[in-house]
Amino acid sequence: MRIGVLTSGGDCPGLNAVIRSVVHRGVVDHGDEIIGFVDGWRGLLEEDYRALTLDSVSGILAQGGTILGSTRVQPSKLREGVPAAKAMCERLGLDGIIPIGGEGTLKAARMLSDAGLPIVGVPKTIDNDIACTDVTFGFDTAVSVATEALDRLKTTAESHQRVMVVELMGRHTGWIALNAGMAAGAHAIVVPERPFDIEKLSRVVGERFERGKKFAIVVVAEGAKPEPGTMEWEQGSIDIYGHERFAGVATRLSGELERRLGKEARPVILGHVQRGGTPTAYDRILATRFGWHAVEAVHKGAFGHLTALQGTDINLVPLAEAVADLKTVPAERYAEAETVI
Amino acid sequence: MRIGVLTSGGDCPGLNAVIRSVVHRGVVDHGDEIIGFVDGWRGLLEEDYRALTLDSVSGILAQGGTILGSTRVQPSKLREGVPAAKAMCERLGLDGIIPIGGEGTLKAARMLSDAGLPIVGVPKTIDNDIACTDVTFGFDTAVSVATEALDRLKTTAESHQRVMVVELMGRHTGWIALNAGMAAGAHAIVVPERPFDIEKLSRVVGERFERGKKFAIVVVAEGAKPEPGTMEWEQGSIDIYGHERFAGVATRLSGELERRLGKEARPVILGHVQRGGTPTAYDRILATRFGWHAVEAVHKGAFGHLTALQGTDINLVPLAEAVADLKTVPAERYAEAETVI
Amino acid sequence: MRIGVLTSGGDCPGLNAVIRSVVHRGVVDHGDEIIGFVDGWRGLLEEDYRALTLDSVSGILAQGGTILGSTRVQPSKLREGVPAAKAMCERLGLDGIIPIGGEGTLKAARMLSDAGLPIVGVPKTIDNDIACTDVTFGFDTAVSVATEALDRLKTTAESHQRVMVVELMGRHTGWIALNAGMAAGAHAIVVPERPFDIEKLSRVVGERFERGKKFAIVVVAEGAKPEPGTMEWEQGSIDIYGHERFAGVATRLSGELERRLGKEARPVILGHVQRGGTPTAYDRILATRFGWHAVEAVHKGAFGHLTALQGTDINLVPLAEAVADLKTVPAERYAEAETVI
Amino acid sequence: MRIGVLTSGGDCPGLNAVIRSVVHRGVVDHGDEIIGFVDGWRGLLEEDYRALTLDSVSGILAQGGTILGSTRVQPSKLREGVPAAKAMCERLGLDGIIPIGGEGTLKAARMLSDAGLPIVGVPKTIDNDIACTDVTFGFDTAVSVATEALDRLKTTAESHQRVMVVELMGRHTGWIALNAGMAAGAHAIVVPERPFDIEKLSRVVGERFERGKKFAIVVVAEGAKPEPGTMEWEQGSIDIYGHERFAGVATRLSGELERRLGKEARPVILGHVQRGGTPTAYDRILATRFGWHAVEAVHKGAFGHLTALQGTDINLVPLAEAVADLKTVPAERYAEAETVI
Repeated sequence: MRIGVLTSGGDCPGLNAVIRSVVHRGVVDHGDEIIGFVDGWRGLLEEDYRALTLDSVSGILAQGGTILGSTRVQPSKLREGVPAAKAMCERLGLDGIIPIGGEGTLKAARMLSDAGLPIVGVPKTIDNDIACTDVTFGFDTAVSVATEALDRLKTTAESHQRVMVVELMGRHTGWIALNAGMAAGAHAIVVPERPFDIEKLSRVVGERFERGKKFAIVVVAEGAKPEPGTMEWEQGSIDIYGHERFAGVATRLSGELERRLGKEARPVILGHVQRGGTPTAYDRILATRFGWHAVEAVHKGAFGHLTALQGTDINLVPLAEAVADLKTVPAERYAEAETVI
Repeated sequence: MRIGVLTSGGDCPGLNAVIRSVVHRGVVDHGDEIIGFVDGWRGLLEEDYRALTLDSVSGILAQGGTILGSTRVQPSKLREGVPAAKAMCERLGLDGIIPIGGEGTLKAARMLSDAGLPIVGVPKTIDNDIACTDVTFGFDTAVSVATEALDRLKTTAESHQRVMVVELMGRHTGWIALNAGMAAGAHAIVVPERPFDIEKLSRVVGERFERGKKFAIVVVAEGAKPEPGTMEWEQGSIDIYGHERFAGVATRLSGELERRLGKEARPVILGHVQRGGTPTAYDRILATRFGWHAVEAVHKGAFGHLTALQGTDINLVPLAEAVADLKTVPAERYAEAETVI
Repeated sequence: MRIGVLTSGGDCPGLNAVIRSVVHRGVVDHGDEIIGFVDGWRGLLEEDYRALTLDSVSGILAQGGTILGSTRVQPSKLREGVPAAKAMCERLGLDGIIPIGGEGTLKAARMLSDAGLPIVGVPKTIDNDIACTDVTFGFDTAVSVATEALDRLKTTAESHQRVMVVELMGRHTGWIALNAGMAAGAHAIVVPERPFDIEKLSRVVGERFERGKKFAIVVVAEGAKPEPGTMEWEQGSIDIYGHERFAGVATRLSGELERRLGKEARPVILGHVQRGGTPTAYDRILATRFGWHAVEAVHKGAFGHLTALQGTDINLVPLAEAVADLKTVPAERYAEAETVI
Repeated sequence: MRIGVLTSGGDCPGLNAVIRSVVHRGVVDHGDEIIGFVDGWRGLLEEDYRALTLDSVSGILAQGGTILGSTRVQPSKLREGVPAAKAMCERLGLDGIIPIGGEGTLKAARMLSDAGLPIVGVPKTIDNDIACTDVTFGFDTAVSVATEALDRLKTTAESHQRVMVVELMGRHTGWIALNAGMAAGAHAIVVPERPFDIEKLSRVVGERFERGKKFAIVVVAEGAKPEPGTMEWEQGSIDIYGHERFAGVATRLSGELERRLGKEARPVILGHVQRGGTPTAYDRILATRFGWHAVEAVHKGAFGHLTALQGTDINLVPLAEAVADLKTVPAERYAEAETVI
């Protein structure tokens, strides 16, 4: 068979591991021919691709980034490109296309699948917010990097007798904040799913100081916001270079806590460090399994699905289900983390 | 309520995280009193315990080892101690006992539970071979440490143009070998569940060299053995100091491969490094959740169970089920790893 | 002998290793009695101290922070406190005082030494800007953490085809930026010692893109500034919570590069992660050696000195020399790093 | 100019960083042409080389191993090859040859230099035993890896109430054992430079248990041996596959300590993990500086020298001095480590 693979959207540790796995499983076990589209959907639309051999993927398992490149393409442009994509698919004799990407990519994948292209998606996001799969690769790496940073910040917060407000990735969901906060023993965790009450948050942190502790770590997801009416809040702004600045939540919270508690507080914005670099063992395994099962799905003709981790199994789930809703932090999970204060 | 906790068996990253979580959930959320038995079952039998307060568990989340200590107690001794344990349990007014341990510990826990003690077990093993739970804490750390070692060994194997045969932990099951081997891109993985055929193994490695590659990494679980009749094999021996030496599999395999392939081969036995030290973020989270849910189980009176990860949920499973069978690597999982050669 | 030790100033990986080493060398080898002043100079001025035994320092070698605490004291307050400090020193029968701290601390140490107190200083700064010593502990850890972050950011910059401008610590000197930038292969390194020419910097980065590269990493020390007259620049500002905001250099540079190059550019401010947490092996060894030699110096009566690494030896250097000038990045060192573009 | 570079001898983290630096400095700053000999001296003798461009060295800074390969060549074969090497050097128009290697390589380099070839050596060894340079790259990585392993083993030794005897690399010198032992707080450190007295060693460890401690870590360099007459000792043996087995020191010591102390003791042999994989930031910087200065030396015509770190400077030292003696652990350094018990 002839199978195309592409990576789309932001960086995510494990992308290369998926690509490598698709090539290994396809070439070695099935005798497939694998091609890689360059720069995601752009490569597909512009028929820009290259052959992927065992040599092409030698040594990439532990490498961050993607050897295929990745650019963002407007959904509208992709929509217009569907007929051309179908034609190209026939011209190249593709038996399957495996797009690896996040929510946007999977929506695009669904569109192409509905149009009749032989698509098997592989979900990718460090944010862990794709429904139907227990976890996505990249997430464990992001949580590990954030946890290591929090471990380090703790000793500084303690030495300087400060509140540290640490902003982690997560515009819509708080998975990274929840898990890294729990792993590092943060004293409060603020996630977008639960608008915070600044009074209560301030009280929780204050009580810690009253118990004789000399520092506190507050972990906050970048998309967190206050309960309406409890605090002035206009998140995001356009800076002089025209970038929307989403950050700010750590800086705002840190300022508020300092003012209310009379304790020195400082924001730390961990940023892009969370989304790149070598994947953890966990993510390499998950990515490798996803790639393996995506090739199997193509061989079975199970198009219109994506690979998903459910328990310890990799199952195939209809694309339609995966893109329906964002997977948010449920109340029970948040309750577990709240204890750890 | 008054709850006792103890750790039993070998070292495992995450033990302290469970203890800390039991104390946090118990003391902060329920107003419980928590006591810790010293040195596992010995502390229980000899009524050697100490109060665990929030201060006792401050700063231990990321620490390896166990602040409570752990010794091995003969099952027979524990059996004889059941009446005394019951008496002590009443005398101390214990509403629940949370033993954290591996297969042996959970069997003991079941015996005590059957005798009427209020037991909620927490499974612990770096080997990941306890049934009913998708994963145990400590396993991710072991796999991460092994993967890091394999990453390093690869460049040396390549520079020296060698076969490296790396022995990882796993006397009865090959989970660590399977996962670390997959994460590091080993060229062959040998597990106890699938007795190896030395001819075939040698051929697989030899073909790699024929394809122009200059090195190979073979990962082998310490309990791996050849298919009966394919190779002389008498595993284990008693050394001059009276220790049974289980190792040897890497050394034996390495020698055989060198002889058959005419390539330099070297064994590396990673050893205890895999089972100690600071837990990964993943293991800290899992351990923390287990502790949290164990306390909940005591409050619900769900005795005779252990905490288990199933998908993304922590569920309670009867002790009887957990100790029935060892969880071995299934054929499908091994097949996924075989591709990655 | 009776020896006091204290830690002063900001967090720095290795402080606990020095304390431990002072106690080990003093107690075990000399039979000394060691006391630790709480919260730096404050403890000395207020006679707030505690005995340090082998048990007090058990397990702290690899821990970040300082078990003795650390607060900032106004130099004027310390100056007024000299007579009281002398009286206390006699009352407690102190044969030596070992302050561990940065430039400010060492200046205070010199003042006390000039006033006749038996002082042996231990230099401490992650910034590596103390003269007379080749390196200070904490620096290797800071560089390692920053390098790891840069390694991760590289794959993201490449995937997203961006310029990343990464701000590292260093208000007055560029040692961390120089070394981390060199270790991670940054494409431009901007340090306070060499005011940058935005035109030239922009050209260097632009040429990289012209050579077909799709991303660039610019490392900038927080204290970097442009050559006068080449760019509008008013560094630092007071935010609404009254904090002086020193940052800004990465944000400013990133904006400028984006505007000039027409390439997406993003700032990353690594922040406090660089200054806390467990020390590297290198820093633990250096800190341990400093503590050992500080105790020796007290026993030899070599007061008014600080411990310094020179080549592979630890020597004693007069405090006066150490505090005379900041150690800045010399032109030759910067030249080595410039090549690596 | 036209410059050849080659790597020779065992794996060592930082080799690729030197190669990259030679290419960067040569090509970018001097407009040189750089060629790389394949598989060390073999490539030189057989005229097997390839051009090294900026692209050839892209992304290799942090990679372990060597992109040029490395094999061992008999000194006699190299001696016979000198005339041919000279002829080749002229035929290729080489203005300089930069061999990167350990003691054996530098001796060979000296021979070629004496024969009139334009040689500038770069010292390489994880063992840190080359005279004239304060440190060699690879050493910091080896110490870091060993320290991390020791950190992990400590918690297991403590949980299992054991003596762990950990064998680290170092056949002739104890630098890795000394530094890793010091960094990890080992309770005894045994190096080849100081033959051990088993009675005294046993007493030191025994006293630790008498003080109430429940475990001990003994670090031993693989080349350590007992004082003559204090213990039966026949180190090394030939196993059934014909390999000389140098190990054994940890196993022997562990057995002896167990017998004498009546405490469980276990050997751990860390092995090749210490010599491969990604270099630390420290080693990447040192390797990069060595490469830079080696190119400078060629341009200055300073042949017959090697690059050496002395204090914070890279100086050129005659090859003759460097290969005269092995740099062993001096008594003062060992004394510092002995304290830390």
